[in-house]
Amino acid sequence: MTYGIGMKTDSGLLFMSDTRTNAGVDNISTFKKMFTWAIDGQSVITILAAGNLATTQSLISILNGFGDNQVAPGVDLLNQPSMFELAQLIGKKLRGIIQSNSDNGQTANSSFHTTLIMGGQIKGDEPRVFMIYPEGNFIEVSIDNPFFQIGETKYGKPILIRAFDPKMSFSDGLKLMLLSFDSTIEANLSVAPPLDFQIYEKDSFTLGANGRIEADDPYYRKISKGWSLALKSAFQSMPNLIIKNK
Amino acid sequence: MTYGIGMKTDSGLLFMSDTRTNAGVDNISTFKKMFTWAIDGQSVITILAAGNLATTQSLISILNGFGDNQVAPGVDLLNQPSMFELAQLIGKKLRGIIQSNSDNGQTANSSFHTTLIMGGQIKGDEPRVFMIYPEGNFIEVSIDNPFFQIGETKYGKPILIRAFDPKMSFSDGLKLMLLSFDSTIEANLSVAPPLDFQIYEKDSFTLGANGRIEADDPYYRKISKGWSLALKSAFQSMPNLIIKNK
Repeated sequence: MTYGIGMKTDSGLLFMSDTRTNAGVDNISTFKKMFTWAIDGQSVITILAAGNLATTQSLISILNGFGDNQVAPGVDLLNQPSMFELAQLIGKKLRGIIQSNSDNGQTANSSFHTTLIMGGQIKGDEPRVFMIYPEGNFIEVSIDNPFFQIGETKYGKPILIRAFDPKMSFSDGLKLMLLSFDSTIEANLSVAPPLDFQIYEKDSFTLGANGRIEADDPYYRKISKGWSLALKSAFQSMPNLIIKNK
Repeated sequence: MTYGIGMKTDSGLLFMSDTRTNAGVDNISTFKKMFTWAIDGQSVITILAAGNLATTQSLISILNGFGDNQVAPGVDLLNQPSMFELAQLIGKKLRGIIQSNSDNGQTANSSFHTTLIMGGQIKGDEPRVFMIYPEGNFIEVSIDNPFFQIGETKYGKPILIRAFDPKMSFSDGLKLMLLSFDSTIEANLSVAPPLDFQIYEKDSFTLGANGRIEADDPYYRKISKGWSLALKSAFQSMPNLIIKNK
């Protein structure tokens, strides 16, 4: 399993993903599920993937130009005229990979599925975030739905719904994503740190702050522990119901 | 969909379930999913059900003695020597109903499935809570796992994990269950009030406080609204990460 978030605020875009992959609980590895490409001053793209690791890696290799007689990595990707056309291109390649595996005499094609969050900005276009389905079609974030989640989405959704604010700073946004991840990690063994994050500042056309948060990262430990206490004290602050017996 | 919780604290047992059933989003009804039986001074039993409504209603009718040439409702149920034997009896009847539907030439027998939370106390035994699977087997709550959830369990689990305390009072337990329901209701349209609750005080051998919390219940509105604010202020109280650019 996987957990990934892509969100759009007034200041720009934020992405976070975990790094655990598993084929059964006895076969666990760490793999990067976040991929970025950039040409300074022109375009910046981030992709998060949840699903079949082979499909994801095929897609990233193909986007990087392997298998297509291309030499420069990500040239196709970085030279699209708009984010919409980029999403179309990626969706088409994703669908193609899944189909080619399924055509090979394999019946359960759903097991080759990968779902993507793709976001960034191309000169002349707004910053945008898309969710691209295995079928190749996609949807975009909106004011009513300012973030996308992929993978194990449910545990971490309530805090996102409650605390998201389009005006929040990058550090608040990062904190919110960490808390959403923390709720998920507490509940599901198949989502685990280290966590990769990537920030993109609107109209900067260059990669923003990014990094990897390890399980023993002091800030992550402080947030995780502090959140338990804060939730408990928020819980205590709620009024009690007077229970009438029978 | 459905959401139900059964939990065991040092003081006794608490149960809560929603009342929404749906066959597609355009066919929504309100049905009670919580059932109680009691003989004062002898045994008290509560069952929550999530799954196929026809299976649930068959089971409850059979447990009430219909279709078995029995006349007194719930006699079999209330006269078991222990909670373990009661769980065995209910599991067997549940499996029987699902099998008899599947045998009828229907292939997708998973669509007849119902999962139960069953708890209570029988004179001479401890208060116990079981989760009974459609296959008829079951597991019991333990110190490490003091509550069971059925139905749409994920959205409401993080707060249960964080705030559950075996020493909590009934009114704290009820508040916790309401908050867990509120997180779920905010995220999933197919879980909705009114919410039924039932409390059983350890060694009382009589039904405890119970009732139905409507969507416009003042306490529920206050908790739901207050929790949003409390979460936001807990979120603000968490320290911010200093983001180093690049």
